[in-house]
Amino acid sequence: MVDWSARINEGDDVVLSVAEGAHDLGVAVAEALGERGANIHTTYASDEISRAYQRAHDDDFDEDPEFERALYESADAVLSLGGGRNTAATADVPGETRQAFNKAREGIREARMDTDWVSTVHPTRALAQQAGMSYEAYQDFVYAAVNRDWQELADEQDKLKSLLDDGEEVRLVSEDTDLTMRIDGRVAVNSCASVAYDSHNLPSGEVFTAPYATEGEVLFDVPMTINGQHVRDAYLEFEDGEVVDYSAASGETAIEEVVTTDDGARRLGELGVGMNRGIDRVTDSILFDEKMGGTVHLALGRAYTSNFPEGHEDDANESAVHVDLITDLRDGGRLEIDGETVQKDGVFRWEDGFEG
Amino acid sequence: MVDWSARINEGDDVVLSVAEGAHDLGVAVAEALGERGANIHTTYASDEISRAYQRAHDDDFDEDPEFERALYESADAVLSLGGGRNTAATADVPGETRQAFNKAREGIREARMDTDWVSTVHPTRALAQQAGMSYEAYQDFVYAAVNRDWQELADEQDKLKSLLDDGEEVRLVSEDTDLTMRIDGRVAVNSCASVAYDSHNLPSGEVFTAPYATEGEVLFDVPMTINGQHVRDAYLEFEDGEVVDYSAASGETAIEEVVTTDDGARRLGELGVGMNRGIDRVTDSILFDEKMGGTVHLALGRAYTSNFPEGHEDDANESAVHVDLITDLRDGGRLEIDGETVQKDGVFRWEDGFEG
Repeated sequence: MVDWSARINEGDDVVLSVAEGAHDLGVAVAEALGERGANIHTTYASDEISRAYQRAHDDDFDEDPEFERALYESADAVLSLGGGRNTAATADVPGETRQAFNKAREGIREARMDTDWVSTVHPTRALAQQAGMSYEAYQDFVYAAVNRDWQELADEQDKLKSLLDDGEEVRLVSEDTDLTMRIDGRVAVNSCASVAYDSHNLPSGEVFTAPYATEGEVLFDVPMTINGQHVRDAYLEFEDGEVVDYSAASGETAIEEVVTTDDGARRLGELGVGMNRGIDRVTDSILFDEKMGGTVHLALGRAYTSNFPEGHEDDANESAVHVDLITDLRDGGRLEIDGETVQKDGVFRWEDGFEG
Repeated sequence: MVDWSARINEGDDVVLSVAEGAHDLGVAVAEALGERGANIHTTYASDEISRAYQRAHDDDFDEDPEFERALYESADAVLSLGGGRNTAATADVPGETRQAFNKAREGIREARMDTDWVSTVHPTRALAQQAGMSYEAYQDFVYAAVNRDWQELADEQDKLKSLLDDGEEVRLVSEDTDLTMRIDGRVAVNSCASVAYDSHNLPSGEVFTAPYATEGEVLFDVPMTINGQHVRDAYLEFEDGEVVDYSAASGETAIEEVVTTDDGARRLGELGVGMNRGIDRVTDSILFDEKMGGTVHLALGRAYTSNFPEGHEDDANESAVHVDLITDLRDGGRLEIDGETVQKDGVFRWEDGFEG
């Protein structure tokens, strides 16, 4: 968190954001920050406090309150320790209130994003419950995902980044999937949990780019929760880069809501390839699920400008949403770049056991 | 807290500081702040995080880190919700580390003090333990102390303020106490838990002034913890305004350390008269003990400039310490101003049962 991810140096002004339930991790990170001679300001990211405040407010929120903007504009890094004691703690905050609150704080959010920010989670019982796991097993899961040899993974991911940067077309194939996407003119991001790689999640472990001209069909067989709805086996059909049909075994209305948000929501904003072998199961948390080795995720909606060459950021797909969906390629699937098989049955061609 | 104490208005930029264990109070205050349309930035005042950070640091702390100073300089109010889960949580932070940390942040502390700040505590199990009370009984105690009719108490305290402002000499008398102090040329502060009265503690409930030319002897029969030492029956003898002899039934070295700190530590900086009838027992917390109705406290060391007329602030006694000691006048004691008995057996002359 402190060294590999945020690259904290002596004298850095660091905002340490501690969620409910993340206290123990906060103590550990504070010790590391003290050792490095950084300065620390500790905030409390409590869902219950946010809920109480937002529900009581009349929704006419002040725009970017000066005191908080001043804090983040002067900060060098923001380390967010998520966790929480109830993943549904803000379920009864009206959507329009949440939107009004977030909209009023866009300047503050941008100031945060301009720092060397890193987000992680402390394994809490609430997150274990969301994953359908015991607390003890969930702790093991999180630490296996986080405690990687990140430099080694960065080097491995660089192989895929080179292939994507040089390639023109990606094809995904499995039992119910056959999808092609153009990727020429795009820049793949080697996301390995370090601000030095423009990667701000811990764990990370993916390489992603911004596809276009998508054609074909894809089944997302990794279940997930989208806007509170459980979605299973979502299916999308693309023509000329746009969704022309969709369905789901459950949660189809959640998919409908996403696809009909705006024009950009019918196009893909991201193709991401999970490469974190420490993540070996689905836990209904996008922070982990989308990085699982052997899976590929596609996001409907907004693209990241980091996938575009300088001066071409305006080509990025625009949308109010960015919703990731995940397909598992480990059982009979393959990923091709320009007709060459790069991954088969979840195994990359540079790994032992590749049978391409 | 929000209305009477801090006088929060719509659009105020409010820092809400939540201690370990004070979460529930944080939720309640956040709701009140939302209702009033204030802006909120929530900080986490964790003793364990402070301990970990300070112990790991090399003690060469940066002076007033810009990001945190910017926050407090732009804030209108700071609401501190104390509590804690272990009153000894920072016991193994070396004194010189603590001093170095505090000294490096004097500018930030001043910026906080320039806001409409209010400090209170949430009743936690740790504080109940410190008081030697069950959690349930301690909650009742705290709410009885806090939930006063503050306007009524402010009006009552105004009577004592007038007497002290007009008076020249105060005399305290009880079995082992006979002490006289000059108070002419001083301004008494009506401390009733509101920034509108220059009072920043919740609960409050005292009237205090800055005495001088102290003569006589005083026994402090209310036990308390001073710098980690339990002090019982501290006794001081004054001549010409200065301590000439001291003793204690236990904790005498704590008294010695205080008195020998510097020249100012041998003189009194405060005479305070407790008037909060909701506080009916000692809980080894100065926030509550010194406001107990029927007690009087005297502080060795630094005086508050608010007790001096404008332009005379330089007359305030200066010292690195300000240590309160408490004497109980409810059993046979009396308080005189210019020879007139104002309080006897802990009962003021305007109260029922006064037998002066």
